[in-house]
Amino acid sequence: MRMVDIIQKKRNGKELTTEEINFFVEGYTKGDIPDYQVSALMMAVYFQGMKSNEIATLTQAMVNSGETIDLSAIEGHKVDKHSTGGVGDKTTFIVGPLVASVGVPVAKMSGRGLGHTGGTLDKLEAIEGFHIEMTKEEFINNVNTHKLAVAGQTGNLAPADKKLYALRDVTATVDSIPLIAGSIMSKKLASGADGIVLDVKTGSGAFMKTLEDSEALAKEMVNIGNNLGRHTVAVISDMNQPLGFEVGNANEVREAVEVLQGKKVDDLRRLSLELSSHMAVIAEIFDTYEEAYKELEKNLDNGKAFEVFRSFVQAQGGNIDMIDDLSKLPQAKYQVEVKAEKDGYVSAIEAESIGIAAMYLGAGRATKDDQINHAVGITLKKKVGDEVKAGEAIVVLHTDDENPTDSIKKVQEAYEISNSKPEERPLIHNVIK
Amino acid sequence: MRMVDIIQKKRNGKELTTEEINFFVEGYTKGDIPDYQVSALMMAVYFQGMKSNEIATLTQAMVNSGETIDLSAIEGHKVDKHSTGGVGDKTTFIVGPLVASVGVPVAKMSGRGLGHTGGTLDKLEAIEGFHIEMTKEEFINNVNTHKLAVAGQTGNLAPADKKLYALRDVTATVDSIPLIAGSIMSKKLASGADGIVLDVKTGSGAFMKTLEDSEALAKEMVNIGNNLGRHTVAVISDMNQPLGFEVGNANEVREAVEVLQGKKVDDLRRLSLELSSHMAVIAEIFDTYEEAYKELEKNLDNGKAFEVFRSFVQAQGGNIDMIDDLSKLPQAKYQVEVKAEKDGYVSAIEAESIGIAAMYLGAGRATKDDQINHAVGITLKKKVGDEVKAGEAIVVLHTDDENPTDSIKKVQEAYEISNSKPEERPLIHNVIK
Repeated sequence: MRMVDIIQKKRNGKELTTEEINFFVEGYTKGDIPDYQVSALMMAVYFQGMKSNEIATLTQAMVNSGETIDLSAIEGHKVDKHSTGGVGDKTTFIVGPLVASVGVPVAKMSGRGLGHTGGTLDKLEAIEGFHIEMTKEEFINNVNTHKLAVAGQTGNLAPADKKLYALRDVTATVDSIPLIAGSIMSKKLASGADGIVLDVKTGSGAFMKTLEDSEALAKEMVNIGNNLGRHTVAVISDMNQPLGFEVGNANEVREAVEVLQGKKVDDLRRLSLELSSHMAVIAEIFDTYEEAYKELEKNLDNGKAFEVFRSFVQAQGGNIDMIDDLSKLPQAKYQVEVKAEKDGYVSAIEAESIGIAAMYLGAGRATKDDQINHAVGITLKKKVGDEVKAGEAIVVLHTDDENPTDSIKKVQEAYEISNSKPEERPLIHNVIK
Repeated sequence: MRMVDIIQKKRNGKELTTEEINFFVEGYTKGDIPDYQVSALMMAVYFQGMKSNEIATLTQAMVNSGETIDLSAIEGHKVDKHSTGGVGDKTTFIVGPLVASVGVPVAKMSGRGLGHTGGTLDKLEAIEGFHIEMTKEEFINNVNTHKLAVAGQTGNLAPADKKLYALRDVTATVDSIPLIAGSIMSKKLASGADGIVLDVKTGSGAFMKTLEDSEALAKEMVNIGNNLGRHTVAVISDMNQPLGFEVGNANEVREAVEVLQGKKVDDLRRLSLELSSHMAVIAEIFDTYEEAYKELEKNLDNGKAFEVFRSFVQAQGGNIDMIDDLSKLPQAKYQVEVKAEKDGYVSAIEAESIGIAAMYLGAGRATKDDQINHAVGITLKKKVGDEVKAGEAIVVLHTDDENPTDSIKKVQEAYEISNSKPEERPLIHNVIK
């Protein structure tokens, strides 16, 4: 078998066999097949696509390239959630304890990574003392006891995906739906969950800008998961503005806890319940989505989900006072208002610009070595559809810099104010099963 | 400027600027841009193509990547001929002396390379004593005196093309018309001719199998040449069977000399006159193709072209006795007939299989280190349209192996015999100016 023939076959729009896909993934992982052949193949895939079974085979090959996590010591159906990434997305902190409260075991593996705000781990570390260092036994024991634990990602998961992604990043072959789907799913599958709920964002602040692309990506990922024996559901949710009102690390933990305490933050609560309901059905705790939704909503309102969160934070060393009194979470030195420049209605909030404004304040990492400031962040005072008067605050910046001009500029760029009230966009666009 | 942005731009179907093309060709030649980015770009070009001006810019950048040959010391308009490659194509040995006989200076730079038969140099070396070793001054002096000289290719011509071609070969990006056109033309342009006549083959034995592809390639090459100030004409000629009757090294020299001596080998004589006429017009020796054709035909018939060939061979040390008495050219030990298996008409001769059969006899090189046997070759006794009887010889193999079974098998595969006379195909399909 020769790599050049595999490239040519895909270039000509033919379907690759399992043997061909395994040959190239194994060869590339081992270093036997050079980057220049793989990048040509990736570009051919960009143009010719891959059939669902090819993508599933590619994904399985990437899973097979490294270690996989064995969660069999955890009782029950382990269900994982994955978001394609949005600004202000703190659903993990709500969904985790919420589904745990009805008995779904949540064994969350998470990373730090780069971005507008920190990763899940960075955000949790806004809580004094919270740590993720534990043995595998402690982790499994924590999940079995509290139904919820979060650990740093360990092990060499899907190294073929890491190598491929790095290559795609410098060869303009990232935005290929089959390759994105395979990349995301290979990491999820290697993490060992029995079922997966995907939150695929759509809109100006999402990686996929159009509903069509988001649906195509969701369908591919659901196909891969189901093809490889993991019950998978995807929710297409809106990201034409940040989710909720808070962006940052302590800011996001605070808002998530408020929702767990019963606060009605419309979009954040709604999306958390949506995702949780699908997870609870996949975990076979409930038979129907409707039943799951009703029971989960109860556990948000009666404080049971919040109780799980408290015991989870305590189990991982977090200072519970900060949760019980949210004002004890890290606070930035200054609160700087950004004001509307004219009367009207907020017609759009460019989520990515809000994210960048938060990163400028110190909430995220531009490079791996940057330190995160847990205290800084952004509170949105106005969201899409709200009426504003000139001079009224649209945003409060929580900042350690008295005069954060770059962030102010980014926020002003992000807000679009129009004369008429904009049409409402649904929060949940579609569910792909 | 970043290579990844250039790849993405082409991937998205946009036109690259001169700055972007120069950036990538210079960077790649120097080794600053890695193979894996260039192969991704080549695959993007495969799918998105290039506009004529982009291809011209790419070609010029490849010319600029290395040395160029200065032919200014040669008087007159230097016109080069290039064939995209076919089996039995010995037109160079006829066209060279023929145009020289009317005053077109032919300064031919040629290589050895791999193939079914040797390159131009290998074939000429079938003539005892013939050599290409001479100083640049001797070469120029020979052209000025005899209007014809052949030298080995010297200098580091278009190194970017060499590097790109080697990469394309292993990444399934060879058969892209703009890239083929740029590759051929960069070498021709670096060789310093003022004008170029291209013989673009079409048909089963050609690199371009369809007339449509051959015309597209021809148009691109003519565009490049004219864009870069070299008067360029392309002739699309048929390659659905070998050209003439002889394939091999001594075999091809013999047939070419016979045509120079007035023998009417239909297709070979016709194509040689066609190519020569365009060359003579480009060289401004004649005003019209018709006038050129008439005068050149005269010089074939009156022996003037043959006289030029004789003086050229003598000037480069060749044993002229071998030319005056062609039976003195190297002769193989055996002549083995391949016979028709049934009655009918020859409806097709797969040129490539005939080429491979000749290579099996030893006429060509499969690898760089192979030695060429000048004496071996193939004589076609029947061509497309000829009637044959079962048991009649269709081919004579000139071989040093008494029982060349592989070659016999290949020849039998190459010949298709049908019940009815096939429709005639034109030899010259089109001329692109």
